[in-house]
Amino acid sequence: MTAIAITAAGGPEVLVPARMAVPVPGQGEILVKVKAAGVNRPDLMQRQGLYPPPPGAPLTPGLEIAGEVAALGTGVQRYETGDRVCALVQGGGYAEYAVVHEDNALPIPPGFSFEEAAAIPETFFTVWTNVFDRGGLQEGQTLLVHGGSSGIGTTAIMLAKALGSTVVVTAGSDEKCQACRDLGADLAINYRTQDFVAVMKEAKLEAHVILDMVGGDYVARNFRVAAMNARIVQIAFQKGSKIDIDLMPLMLKRLYLTGSTLRPRSVAEKAEIARALEDTVWPLFAGGQIRPKIFRTFPLAKACDAHALLEQSEHIGKVVLKV
Amino acid sequence: MTAIAITAAGGPEVLVPARMAVPVPGQGEILVKVKAAGVNRPDLMQRQGLYPPPPGAPLTPGLEIAGEVAALGTGVQRYETGDRVCALVQGGGYAEYAVVHEDNALPIPPGFSFEEAAAIPETFFTVWTNVFDRGGLQEGQTLLVHGGSSGIGTTAIMLAKALGSTVVVTAGSDEKCQACRDLGADLAINYRTQDFVAVMKEAKLEAHVILDMVGGDYVARNFRVAAMNARIVQIAFQKGSKIDIDLMPLMLKRLYLTGSTLRPRSVAEKAEIARALEDTVWPLFAGGQIRPKIFRTFPLAKACDAHALLEQSEHIGKVVLKV
Repeated sequence: MTAIAITAAGGPEVLVPARMAVPVPGQGEILVKVKAAGVNRPDLMQRQGLYPPPPGAPLTPGLEIAGEVAALGTGVQRYETGDRVCALVQGGGYAEYAVVHEDNALPIPPGFSFEEAAAIPETFFTVWTNVFDRGGLQEGQTLLVHGGSSGIGTTAIMLAKALGSTVVVTAGSDEKCQACRDLGADLAINYRTQDFVAVMKEAKLEAHVILDMVGGDYVARNFRVAAMNARIVQIAFQKGSKIDIDLMPLMLKRLYLTGSTLRPRSVAEKAEIARALEDTVWPLFAGGQIRPKIFRTFPLAKACDAHALLEQSEHIGKVVLKV
Repeated sequence: MTAIAITAAGGPEVLVPARMAVPVPGQGEILVKVKAAGVNRPDLMQRQGLYPPPPGAPLTPGLEIAGEVAALGTGVQRYETGDRVCALVQGGGYAEYAVVHEDNALPIPPGFSFEEAAAIPETFFTVWTNVFDRGGLQEGQTLLVHGGSSGIGTTAIMLAKALGSTVVVTAGSDEKCQACRDLGADLAINYRTQDFVAVMKEAKLEAHVILDMVGGDYVARNFRVAAMNARIVQIAFQKGSKIDIDLMPLMLKRLYLTGSTLRPRSVAEKAEIARALEDTVWPLFAGGQIRPKIFRTFPLAKACDAHALLEQSEHIGKVVLKV
């Protein structure tokens, strides 16, 4: 089969199509003939050599796929060959075939294309586990999301609005802010021209949950806009994880500063998130209330161009490879 | 009545007995003839002018009392005059009389002296809300407590052991470490001679919950001994709240860094803690499984000496005033 190899740590040009053996599904696993694969920021970090795959994971990039079940490992219960599925994979998504445990796959929602389905797993698993599970966002509460126009951000906006929250986002241009508002954000703040702390105080809004991938000086600023007992969830540190901070507000406001990563989790932990998504979010897909926002697609062989696009940070929503 | 006034911000000598009006119980409040009052570190900070009482609270110090109900405000349901109660008060505990909402009072456990009962509220409310509620400590998990020989520390040891946890403490002398072990601590580390990170790694122990009143460099060190998904609860910052920290371990280990203070909470919030204590801890008092550890008592007029003692940090357990 053809898959995208990382020939060396480096820029997008190190992503090169290569011939590889089709993987063999093990106990409880399905082999998926990949029709589309999502592109995510952790893939860029892996390509740069900054985020090595966990032990046992494929060395080729790609964390989410959609396609048709092509073969079954022993003990598979839910799926049959030909079923249309999307899945969170351990790696190796940029390929014609990929294996995944059946519990980390979900049926493609009715009426969704493979490209749309491939745009679901990474951001919806991430937003669910961090905003709703770890963050405990409740109906009627306010969510603040930094990077509102990213794949994660657009997913968080749609999901939190569909589940009854007020959503505040920051984004890097007026165009991105408008796109966030178009998706349902109640307040979108251009962080290049405005201070989100000042804007939120002016609007008399406090955040009950904050989803942050920025870190750096944002941590102290998040404390300032957090409501009593708010939860601040770090999923990355684009401005760095080493900070000077006064923790007094954390104690006085009884905040929770937490964070998580998704990829190192076990099949069982990911399966738990999959079940929650199927219960709560799949009905929203089926009912047409939310749909992943796709910015652009590329052919598999042009994975390098997809990475170059993501690195420019001009995208709004998801970037997907067609296989 | 006689109560202890803070004549000016300063050392223990500013605590002076003074004549004051007996307070009048309001709606839902009881007037308690105080027989004993606990002395706590926040009282020292209030005396130094570093911890002003919340709006509406008495200006005289003292956060916990035991005594007899002397009069009832309107609408009081649970208590009658003559009942023996202990209570968490908004302030003004160092006095012959104090008022408190009936929901923030609890009956004195059978067989307990007034001095023992006065040693309960502040530390048990604090440990309950931080270790069990906010920290979520479960049976079979490991609790790390810094300052194991303090009032808070000794309470945390007894309660966590009674409820089925492994308890690790740090303390400032071999004698204090021995006292912690005598109370049930599984491992006591003299922080003046040993590095708790090294000792815990050597013992292959990870903490699921950490109760910390130190802050400073302890925050990063707490990250190192924390188990996956551990909760670290700050209840003070004796080494400072302004720190340099790398938050990467918080994300990779999915930790929760949180904290709280007790005093500013509403009557209703404190009442919720009181109910949990009555359900879970009062049976342990009645069954003789735990009993507050009292280090020394002083007459009310000698509150200054009690403060001087606490400031030396040579005590093990609680210091109580007899009225």
